[in-house]
Amino acid sequence: MGITAAVAGASGYAGGELLRILAGHPEFEIGTLTAGSNAGAELGTLQPHLRPLAARVLAETTPETLAGHDVVFLALPHGQSGPLAERLGDDVLVVDCGADFRLRDAGDWAEFYGTPHAGTWPYGLPELPGQREALRGTRRIAVPGCYPTAVTLAMFPAFGAGLVEPDVVVVAASGTSGAGRSLKPHLLGSEVMGSMSPYGVGGVHRHTPEMTQNLSAVAGEPVTVSFTPTLAPMSRGILATCTAKVRPGVDHAAVRRAYGDAYDGETFVSLLPEGQWPATAMTLGANTAFVQVALDERAGRLVAVAAIDNLTKGTAGGAVQSANIALGLPEELGLTTIGVSP
Amino acid sequence: MGITAAVAGASGYAGGELLRILAGHPEFEIGTLTAGSNAGAELGTLQPHLRPLAARVLAETTPETLAGHDVVFLALPHGQSGPLAERLGDDVLVVDCGADFRLRDAGDWAEFYGTPHAGTWPYGLPELPGQREALRGTRRIAVPGCYPTAVTLAMFPAFGAGLVEPDVVVVAASGTSGAGRSLKPHLLGSEVMGSMSPYGVGGVHRHTPEMTQNLSAVAGEPVTVSFTPTLAPMSRGILATCTAKVRPGVDHAAVRRAYGDAYDGETFVSLLPEGQWPATAMTLGANTAFVQVALDERAGRLVAVAAIDNLTKGTAGGAVQSANIALGLPEELGLTTIGVSP
Amino acid sequence: MGITAAVAGASGYAGGELLRILAGHPEFEIGTLTAGSNAGAELGTLQPHLRPLAARVLAETTPETLAGHDVVFLALPHGQSGPLAERLGDDVLVVDCGADFRLRDAGDWAEFYGTPHAGTWPYGLPELPGQREALRGTRRIAVPGCYPTAVTLAMFPAFGAGLVEPDVVVVAASGTSGAGRSLKPHLLGSEVMGSMSPYGVGGVHRHTPEMTQNLSAVAGEPVTVSFTPTLAPMSRGILATCTAKVRPGVDHAAVRRAYGDAYDGETFVSLLPEGQWPATAMTLGANTAFVQVALDERAGRLVAVAAIDNLTKGTAGGAVQSANIALGLPEELGLTTIGVSP
Amino acid sequence: MGITAAVAGASGYAGGELLRILAGHPEFEIGTLTAGSNAGAELGTLQPHLRPLAARVLAETTPETLAGHDVVFLALPHGQSGPLAERLGDDVLVVDCGADFRLRDAGDWAEFYGTPHAGTWPYGLPELPGQREALRGTRRIAVPGCYPTAVTLAMFPAFGAGLVEPDVVVVAASGTSGAGRSLKPHLLGSEVMGSMSPYGVGGVHRHTPEMTQNLSAVAGEPVTVSFTPTLAPMSRGILATCTAKVRPGVDHAAVRRAYGDAYDGETFVSLLPEGQWPATAMTLGANTAFVQVALDERAGRLVAVAAIDNLTKGTAGGAVQSANIALGLPEELGLTTIGVSP
Repeated sequence: MGITAAVAGASGYAGGELLRILAGHPEFEIGTLTAGSNAGAELGTLQPHLRPLAARVLAETTPETLAGHDVVFLALPHGQSGPLAERLGDDVLVVDCGADFRLRDAGDWAEFYGTPHAGTWPYGLPELPGQREALRGTRRIAVPGCYPTAVTLAMFPAFGAGLVEPDVVVVAASGTSGAGRSLKPHLLGSEVMGSMSPYGVGGVHRHTPEMTQNLSAVAGEPVTVSFTPTLAPMSRGILATCTAKVRPGVDHAAVRRAYGDAYDGETFVSLLPEGQWPATAMTLGANTAFVQVALDERAGRLVAVAAIDNLTKGTAGGAVQSANIALGLPEELGLTTIGVSP
Repeated sequence: MGITAAVAGASGYAGGELLRILAGHPEFEIGTLTAGSNAGAELGTLQPHLRPLAARVLAETTPETLAGHDVVFLALPHGQSGPLAERLGDDVLVVDCGADFRLRDAGDWAEFYGTPHAGTWPYGLPELPGQREALRGTRRIAVPGCYPTAVTLAMFPAFGAGLVEPDVVVVAASGTSGAGRSLKPHLLGSEVMGSMSPYGVGGVHRHTPEMTQNLSAVAGEPVTVSFTPTLAPMSRGILATCTAKVRPGVDHAAVRRAYGDAYDGETFVSLLPEGQWPATAMTLGANTAFVQVALDERAGRLVAVAAIDNLTKGTAGGAVQSANIALGLPEELGLTTIGVSP
Repeated sequence: MGITAAVAGASGYAGGELLRILAGHPEFEIGTLTAGSNAGAELGTLQPHLRPLAARVLAETTPETLAGHDVVFLALPHGQSGPLAERLGDDVLVVDCGADFRLRDAGDWAEFYGTPHAGTWPYGLPELPGQREALRGTRRIAVPGCYPTAVTLAMFPAFGAGLVEPDVVVVAASGTSGAGRSLKPHLLGSEVMGSMSPYGVGGVHRHTPEMTQNLSAVAGEPVTVSFTPTLAPMSRGILATCTAKVRPGVDHAAVRRAYGDAYDGETFVSLLPEGQWPATAMTLGANTAFVQVALDERAGRLVAVAAIDNLTKGTAGGAVQSANIALGLPEELGLTTIGVSP
Repeated sequence: MGITAAVAGASGYAGGELLRILAGHPEFEIGTLTAGSNAGAELGTLQPHLRPLAARVLAETTPETLAGHDVVFLALPHGQSGPLAERLGDDVLVVDCGADFRLRDAGDWAEFYGTPHAGTWPYGLPELPGQREALRGTRRIAVPGCYPTAVTLAMFPAFGAGLVEPDVVVVAASGTSGAGRSLKPHLLGSEVMGSMSPYGVGGVHRHTPEMTQNLSAVAGEPVTVSFTPTLAPMSRGILATCTAKVRPGVDHAAVRRAYGDAYDGETFVSLLPEGQWPATAMTLGANTAFVQVALDERAGRLVAVAAIDNLTKGTAGGAVQSANIALGLPEELGLTTIGVSP
């Protein structure tokens, strides 16, 4: 008897990726699948790559349809998880891939999301110091945003070791699946192929306070993040380039030591050998973050880069990794570290 | 104790895909990896996505380095497998992803490849009538070419049921990984992105006699194939569009019955529901072929389309599927049917 | 004083391409721009690449807003041009980029479009025998469809010289801009990047009767066309691969002669040197069709390939080329033969 | 009689783009074309999109073959222009698209390029204060690097108006054509499609001192630049995201005024309306830079973004623009501001 798992939002890209991973997970048994406007449809018409689940019919997303499972994965627009989660039992593991329970500061939430703050759940980034322990046995998990996953993994070792000033500049490129499956003109293939463009410029992207929260916690002081996301002509992947001024006396050896210590023993974060840089293609479909770091002595800056698959380590893979921990399963169960490449 | 497997040609795209699959296969243990000009290098510098194998050093491709394994996968340029295979023991399962042992007709071989014919091995396309049986217990497997895999799966049911004239037109689009990792100007990203182009036009592509051989065997008469491959701006995937004149009296129901019968019960070939057409993205990294067929009554033609991942079902996945059969393992072991999408 | 030109449908891709070309045309002066649901918007918000026209406000598409110009270009959904054109003066040159006036056979129109047949206008493919003359002085032009442009240019020389049987198989790949700017799930960047897929399979694509009409006229007998369009991961470009059985006695020299004769002296169709094959990237933004042909002696087939930019030679460039002829201007005015490459 | 122009390096991407522009320029007549290892080849085999020049045979790149022209455009690997230019007459306009004559500081040159410093020529970025005047009548032009073009246009107005601290962080994405046509594994289509990756991280990219030089000159004090280039899955285009801390008291109005003043009246730089952001696709084949800027009040930073076509405004278009000025022609002659989009 497996652990039964429901997926709410099964017709979207995050929901599809959850199902791809769950279908290959040796302990989970896929239960109810739900959707919003696509309720009633067969999954095969919407997610044709999920062939073994093609005949499944999507239910409506309600507490009732989601009831009776050991785990409920929520892949819903922000604002929907809060009310829904209240009606799911305390003994059910609820894993929210949305933003509702990520932020600790209600003011940040109000400023960036504009709706009432639902609360704060244990944050599903096990590689953060102390976080793996916080996830053991929990029945509520807030899965990190895709950009914050990449940025936090790129920069927290520098803050943990006190290497840099608390003022970070991040420019990140994301594949279009990060914008979801909604029909918007700028997401048409004709518009995105052959084109790079920024969006949410000037500190207004909703993932900004989440990065600030993570890095400030590690730094032990407020960290400022200037974040500019860009849309890249690819379906998946995030490449986050992050830089901050190094503190006096910080040298190459200190930098490598800090990152080496942070990721030594981590299955899902790979610090590359010196001189080798991440490419998002290395991560396709894998729950892996590749990280690399350099010291620019002329500019007096540390430059750290992380590459992830936004839907895997950046969403669904990260969700399953944290769920494994919460349930006492081996952390890497059902997750691969090898991307589909080239 | 796992089954030990060596991979010759581990620095190429087919070799990398073999390793990706073998690393997740519950019964295989990855042994020696070899390369040509890349011998001596660490795998991580060439195949960075294969993180768990990054420290492996590539040996030279010789009978000696490949000796002592239960299975040897060959992913080499054509002409190299023949001499090598002779020096590998008869009890070793040798799986050749190259062309050397695919063709039965030495004249075809001479005409299209120009070198002495190495021989003919059991053909690794289990879905072909009688072929699964031929693979059981064998110690030599010729993995089909990527295009012939797609074209044969698209068209053999039509020939098996006597629906069409023995004159097929095929136009297929392939991702660039099908051309391998060699440095050729027309394979540069700057050249291929945003561009479709044909190559090997006029019946000269080396996969043509292999298609003819497969379809003629099923038809029981000589089949002519007009084959035009095209290069598409994507890394992976083959979309093969195939058409032939229907014989008198063939109707829609007969067509659906033929294809339904051919693929009923097959794990790795999916006949889509009527009206839904394959896209190569459905197959990314999966050992799945999606097939669909229609009858064009005005033109009097059957049109069949197959989509595969050229490196998975079209090469490495197909190789492992056939190796599973040869070794008496469950055919689907270590292979997924779910692509990484979007 | 220039020739004044209005563009109806200026917010779409075809309309945008018309404006790009007209803005660089030495004789045209751009007048009223109209749109459907985008009426009232500034062009710069919809077509930001048309910087010099950014401040233009889109009018509604009505006979009144379009009145008072020497030329009216229509880039509208099919069915809209007919009623509109009736209300534009007979002395105005009306160039319809839509389908309304392309087909001569009302039965074909009814079968493929389902609405009343608006009529037939001179067909804007000057390279077709006799067609350049038919366009001189006309005040009504039906611009060919993008696929029929490519397919007709690839195959009419073979029919003109009696080289092939009247049974053609066409498989063509198109960039996504050919599907226009409408918001459909399968046109999202996340869906199309990295993917090839067919659509309109089985003889149902609306461009089929137009190909049949063109080739039958040249052949002097009914020609059957099996047409399968595919969607390619690129914004622009059509690659049409066409094949037909050669008649007895047709040899290589006859084939080259036929194509050489057909395109000798044509500015906008380039028969490539033997052995060099078209790529759509050669044509980006240019009013050029590249054509190449080969004889497959084993299969007894002629294979002809044409590459065009679907929005330029396939729509807006072809429209301007024909308008130039109608107005007595040099045919090549304002049109380039050099693509933007790589 | 036109102005005769030779192009050295005609088989590369920059050379091809020069020829595309020159072929449409009303005053230039294309003379000798030269190449390195491709000398002796017909241009049509290497640059098939340049159809009207297809029969031109490439000469060797020597002072003799380049002699006798009014203008010589050099599109050569760095280090080759210096010796060559010495042997071209002082009355010949020599326009170097390479790096040899860009840097004023010989120490910078030695550190980043490692060869003897050839000297410094007037810098071909007319939009920089005072630079247009410096180009009038000159017979030597150093065309800016593609990245420095984008970065300088994005940031110099901020320095000109004293808005920001002299410490800039730049992350820029480039299409693969920026890396030229050389055969390198990481430039294969299979590697770049679907992938973003950084390179030259840590302040080592050769364009860094050029950015520093330009911005320092405008700022009137030394400016530090942290520059991280990334490779994007597209053929053309640069998107440069630049940020610096704003000085106390700088507000939104001051920022817009500075950028408005800098680009008011410029043909080839377009400051977009507030809230609209550049995309590289807007610039394809056009000599246009699109610029936008925002103030991130939380982070205390100005964020400026520029998009260009690296081969047009970033190389060949910029070269022709400056050559026009040097020769006393209208600056915009032969150059379009409208990109090929979508």
